[in-house]
Amino acid sequence: MDIFNRYAVQAYDRCELLANISQDPACVDRRYLTPQHQQVNQQVALWMQQAGMKVWQDEAGNQWGRYTSNTPNAQTVVIGSHLDTVPNSGKYDGILGVMTPLSLIQYFHDNQVALPYHLELVGFGDEEGTRFGATLLGSCAVAGTWQERWATLEDENGISLAQAMGDFGLDINHIKNAGRGDHSISSFIEFHIEQGPVLEDQDLAVGIVSGIAGANRFSINITGQAGHAGTVPMSMRKDALAASSDMILAIERIARSQDIVATVGHLQCKSGAVNVICGETAFSLDIRSTDDEHKDKVVGLIIDEITLIAKGRKVDIDIKATHQAHGVKCDQQLQVKLANALKASGIEPYTLSSGAGHDTMAMAKICPVAMLFMRCEKGISHNPAEAVSISDIAVATQVLAEFLVNY
Amino acid sequence: MDIFNRYAVQAYDRCELLANISQDPACVDRRYLTPQHQQVNQQVALWMQQAGMKVWQDEAGNQWGRYTSNTPNAQTVVIGSHLDTVPNSGKYDGILGVMTPLSLIQYFHDNQVALPYHLELVGFGDEEGTRFGATLLGSCAVAGTWQERWATLEDENGISLAQAMGDFGLDINHIKNAGRGDHSISSFIEFHIEQGPVLEDQDLAVGIVSGIAGANRFSINITGQAGHAGTVPMSMRKDALAASSDMILAIERIARSQDIVATVGHLQCKSGAVNVICGETAFSLDIRSTDDEHKDKVVGLIIDEITLIAKGRKVDIDIKATHQAHGVKCDQQLQVKLANALKASGIEPYTLSSGAGHDTMAMAKICPVAMLFMRCEKGISHNPAEAVSISDIAVATQVLAEFLVNY
Repeated sequence: MDIFNRYAVQAYDRCELLANISQDPACVDRRYLTPQHQQVNQQVALWMQQAGMKVWQDEAGNQWGRYTSNTPNAQTVVIGSHLDTVPNSGKYDGILGVMTPLSLIQYFHDNQVALPYHLELVGFGDEEGTRFGATLLGSCAVAGTWQERWATLEDENGISLAQAMGDFGLDINHIKNAGRGDHSISSFIEFHIEQGPVLEDQDLAVGIVSGIAGANRFSINITGQAGHAGTVPMSMRKDALAASSDMILAIERIARSQDIVATVGHLQCKSGAVNVICGETAFSLDIRSTDDEHKDKVVGLIIDEITLIAKGRKVDIDIKATHQAHGVKCDQQLQVKLANALKASGIEPYTLSSGAGHDTMAMAKICPVAMLFMRCEKGISHNPAEAVSISDIAVATQVLAEFLVNY
Repeated sequence: MDIFNRYAVQAYDRCELLANISQDPACVDRRYLTPQHQQVNQQVALWMQQAGMKVWQDEAGNQWGRYTSNTPNAQTVVIGSHLDTVPNSGKYDGILGVMTPLSLIQYFHDNQVALPYHLELVGFGDEEGTRFGATLLGSCAVAGTWQERWATLEDENGISLAQAMGDFGLDINHIKNAGRGDHSISSFIEFHIEQGPVLEDQDLAVGIVSGIAGANRFSINITGQAGHAGTVPMSMRKDALAASSDMILAIERIARSQDIVATVGHLQCKSGAVNVICGETAFSLDIRSTDDEHKDKVVGLIIDEITLIAKGRKVDIDIKATHQAHGVKCDQQLQVKLANALKASGIEPYTLSSGAGHDTMAMAKICPVAMLFMRCEKGISHNPAEAVSISDIAVATQVLAEFLVNY
């Protein structure tokens, strides 16, 4: 592993450096089609050239580099992740998934490692969706699943996506040219921090991703009856907050028993006070699984149970579906190749699913996909406290090297 | 009961009339020491004089009338309630408790009913506390429990209580003169709408109040750990909202089993979102009982149980006591007299406790107290939808007549 250490340090230091390119001087915040996006692309392109790559920016603002093969009729493998961040972000979510392969290609270049396929590295311009609301804009353009209606999406300053592209030097009318759905890509590999606590809990540097969870989201309104906290006996109450609490615990219980994640992340008391029984609440529900069929079954169980609770407590319930995304399964053969790369690096393969969305979801539309996760401290992400270790990056670099050299 | 019907109509119509004297033309809103307070006092004084009463306003702005007895060395019985309202109020909370006895005294006057004691009627100037934050200002002045520090309390426009008194034509330095703690009052009776659903549920026009609940209030903060709704397995979560839900249901369960009212009226998610596990919540807790000892026992049970839940869920809990008021028991002999008055009116006596605070709490410091509750529609109060029936007022008038004549 020692030979990869200085490349891991380089990747780590470059994440540090890119974190300074932020639209907000007080924190890391770099969104799609901003001057900071442009600046990062230019910096990354420079590093790609230093690693012997041919570089270009596509019509969606994604930054590409190609480590060209001399093999005739070589296929193309793409590796990469995203270069944008959420507001008040950490330094590694997405970015490390571009910097680590970039340093690995620098290693290939330094050691004149020739590959029997073209290896392309991509830094997607928008994965987080924090500027225009819609996520995965960069990878959707590459997958050819860009939606025409996105042109009129506006950022918080009222600038449309079409206008922002123009300001960036792009033309939204040429967005189709970013598409790579022509079978020219034989597989896509994404390396990413886990953003969860599982690998740390397992004491592992890296793990193989089996799939990315789909998600169903709901907005649930409970209407009971407000009343005086002192004068309405317990037996005569229609307490919307107590009913919601009952439902939140039922959701937690069902999720545990069905081995799925379900989250009520936010609840709002729309009435009530210290001395007033709460008459109305609204809460969110997010249910995820890589197995769509199982997820749909659990959604049914939860809706049945909370409807029953509402009936028992004589409160009204209104359930609105607000979002639905299908799960994506990673390619079985690529998972085997990753497992072999782990074994060759002296690491026992461990497989986990991703509860968070990734560019891999978009890329799965056009080619087989795989993901390698790396542990991050306490699983913290989307937060300045996001942290990784250089030794883990060195492990990941070795695993990716084994994977790519033996692909 | 028919003879009291026209007096009940008079009381009802006068509530309607006083509701028009509001500082807000869009709703009923009449607070302490406002021009509207003055206007109401003047109107009520006029009606008191028409009923043969001697009238005066005390140093706290409470309006008094005395229906004088000819009996030598007669004792004094006081009946009354308050004339102020909350913002966006109903028409009967407090007001009906002045207008009904006023019409009854009009009946005594019309029919030359002589009483063996002086009957004083009081309209307190502040019970709700909506202008200066502190409640029961009017009755505390009468009970001699006025606090000197109240002088500097300010309303939402920065006007101090001392200044508002001056503007009203009063002198806060003379407030002690409003005190009646000299044993000159032999008992205090308050008539009031229930502000709860119990009498309606029991199909009764009126009921005898056994006591007024004391209340303990707490502000409770739960700190867990925020996290990604997709990447943190259920078993590794420290979900502050799920923990709070567990506590809210425990509080409800304990309150039911201990025959007490306990309310979590408001909860705030201080972190969390549809896709983020909630890391911090704050919620209120209000526990009431007329029996202080039992209330303190239940407070202990609840604190033990929610502390245990916090421990089990590995979240931090911070419990702050924000308010404590002792319960007040109504006088046993006066309750018997009220029961006799009910029986004489052909109504089966029914006893209930008051979960809401009343001027009676302050008056209990200086004399035996009693309360008669009247049903109000659906128990709704502090709301423009507050509603009462004239036939119920007629019943209450008869019961009060029986009580006062046979006192």
